[in-house]
Amino acid sequence: MSSLHFEILAHDTQGFARRTRIQLPHGTVETPVFMPVGTQATVKSLTPADLQEDIEASIILSNTYHLMLRPGADVIQTMGGLHRFMGWNRPILTDSGGFQVWSLGALRKIEEDGVRFRSHIDGSSWFLGPKESMQIQQQLGSDIVMAFDECTPYPATYEQARESMQMSMRWAAQCREHLPVNDKQALFGIVQGGMYADLRRESLHAIAQMDVEGIAIGGLSVGEPKEEMLATLDALAPHLPHNKPRYVMGVGTPDDLIEGIDRGIDMFDCVMPSRNARNGTLFTDHGKINIKNLKHQTDDAPIMEGCSCYTCQHFSRAYLRHLYIAKELLSARLNTLHNLHYYTHLMQRARAALEAHRWAAFRDEFLQTYRQGSH
Amino acid sequence: MSSLHFEILAHDTQGFARRTRIQLPHGTVETPVFMPVGTQATVKSLTPADLQEDIEASIILSNTYHLMLRPGADVIQTMGGLHRFMGWNRPILTDSGGFQVWSLGALRKIEEDGVRFRSHIDGSSWFLGPKESMQIQQQLGSDIVMAFDECTPYPATYEQARESMQMSMRWAAQCREHLPVNDKQALFGIVQGGMYADLRRESLHAIAQMDVEGIAIGGLSVGEPKEEMLATLDALAPHLPHNKPRYVMGVGTPDDLIEGIDRGIDMFDCVMPSRNARNGTLFTDHGKINIKNLKHQTDDAPIMEGCSCYTCQHFSRAYLRHLYIAKELLSARLNTLHNLHYYTHLMQRARAALEAHRWAAFRDEFLQTYRQGSH
Repeated sequence: MSSLHFEILAHDTQGFARRTRIQLPHGTVETPVFMPVGTQATVKSLTPADLQEDIEASIILSNTYHLMLRPGADVIQTMGGLHRFMGWNRPILTDSGGFQVWSLGALRKIEEDGVRFRSHIDGSSWFLGPKESMQIQQQLGSDIVMAFDECTPYPATYEQARESMQMSMRWAAQCREHLPVNDKQALFGIVQGGMYADLRRESLHAIAQMDVEGIAIGGLSVGEPKEEMLATLDALAPHLPHNKPRYVMGVGTPDDLIEGIDRGIDMFDCVMPSRNARNGTLFTDHGKINIKNLKHQTDDAPIMEGCSCYTCQHFSRAYLRHLYIAKELLSARLNTLHNLHYYTHLMQRARAALEAHRWAAFRDEFLQTYRQGSH
Repeated sequence: MSSLHFEILAHDTQGFARRTRIQLPHGTVETPVFMPVGTQATVKSLTPADLQEDIEASIILSNTYHLMLRPGADVIQTMGGLHRFMGWNRPILTDSGGFQVWSLGALRKIEEDGVRFRSHIDGSSWFLGPKESMQIQQQLGSDIVMAFDECTPYPATYEQARESMQMSMRWAAQCREHLPVNDKQALFGIVQGGMYADLRRESLHAIAQMDVEGIAIGGLSVGEPKEEMLATLDALAPHLPHNKPRYVMGVGTPDDLIEGIDRGIDMFDCVMPSRNARNGTLFTDHGKINIKNLKHQTDDAPIMEGCSCYTCQHFSRAYLRHLYIAKELLSARLNTLHNLHYYTHLMQRARAALEAHRWAAFRDEFLQTYRQGSH
């Protein structure tokens, strides 16, 4: 019996956008959904209560690479798994560790079974491949396990992208072997292929053949122009299986999310709202604001009029500017609360628009307002 | 009409300890009380909601020196005062700025009207004396204003301590002139005199003669042995006016607070619980624990069994150790929540013991358990 139950609740009649529901062992996820990133078993500065009650996150992402190094998968398993360890009882998606091995690990050496690398923390030697990634993600006990893959760098030649994609496809099949369908954890395969439409479709075809519970699109938001990212999604959209959740990894800005939904994507994650928050960049419907700007020194307005987050309900831009300038810990927290609330509530609005069959109007109005404010 | 109404609700029949109630413009403070320190218009890492709902703080302290430099008293006044600026609607006590001028300001030059100094932030030149301190604290709009004084350094010769104390007494009188009795802000005078009992009593006599709403004892916890601090409180205890709140500034450890209550003190503040929290040192009835210790790696216990704080209700020592080791922002927050909750709830327990006429038993039992655990 599968650990994932999937329903399509509404569908835009003119395009690919859809409103779905994913049931997982730790709860239900309404999509389109944004998943806050909890890299080291914590969404930076926030508690599970903040995430549930204020941000209303239904699922979060955590990182296998970081957790395997610190505190270690054995420690988390001993403590009863990741949900119990971090006090979060809703669904968790864990990535495979691959992306961080490529971006953070030192002295990488690719072998057919995986990658040998050194920890960015202490230089210790590690090996991670499909088998190890599946084992560690089982120890963590996440609801959704991501296949171990290579995130093809940008730019890449056709030949590089093809070889990388084919290796990822071999690894994906091995992941399914090491983690057969079960009632505790779902496995998502990852489409690669760089910026080459035919490789992407070849990869999608391979993943769709495997008995995975969800389809992820990886290797985007890796430095390519936005047009290339959207062109890749355009190339895949007509071919995505309907009966499975679709997830674009590491994307993106608020307008990227809307563009992604428009191309049939259900799930998103990105460090942008939380990382930008810590740098004083805050999201609104009218684009981003930089809280450290002198013009906010005695600005009595909230970050965004009408926002229902704790930060906007209680604090002025003037106070948030003061906290940022004074390097106060509360700055990161209040800013992160707002940005993640903004993202999850943008997804709520997208779901409402899809249910009300007014997706195109919502999309156009949002993109126009947001992009006007951004320029 | 005074801004402070004071009642004694219970008194230890054998000693000086007492249970009182202080009514201030922004609310009621039940004593003995511990005031969390919100240096830069924020108790580091915490929101007003945390302070009210979890920590149950009835009053907090904020620092004139820090606020006058950043964001500036004018900014806070423009934003409607400190309560509104930081979103805290219960009482606030502000210190005079004097202590930080001595400890942080550079190139200090004492003049009869105050002190000229350079900002520790940007080297800009400032002047702070009784008149300026009263004006700034009025702009901030705190419920309790502290007199501007010199915190006599330790050690000091008798002559140094006497001259410093006499200057502070002249300044205290000027503070009252600049801030006459009114219905918005109460003024507390500060007893100085170093470690010399006769100077302390002379200073107390001078302050008691002034029409101030509360009596503070300054110049303690400045590096002296604990015995000297307690001897100073012992020398003052029989002479403290009964009809006013008494506040020992900058004190201290949990056992210091119990010893202070035993010597007739009603109010305390200290950065220790919040600063120690950020350094991974956590308070329990059995002494302090260091969360980074390897023995907590898979320790499923909360910081303190039976503690009702959010941290202890939801997280293990193992998780708190992980957050600390991984340098996560949530570490400071969860640790601070616990330590401040521990302090304010220790004061709740002291109040209950005083009301139940079992102060001596509570004191002895607490001190024995706490000090056994600390060795």
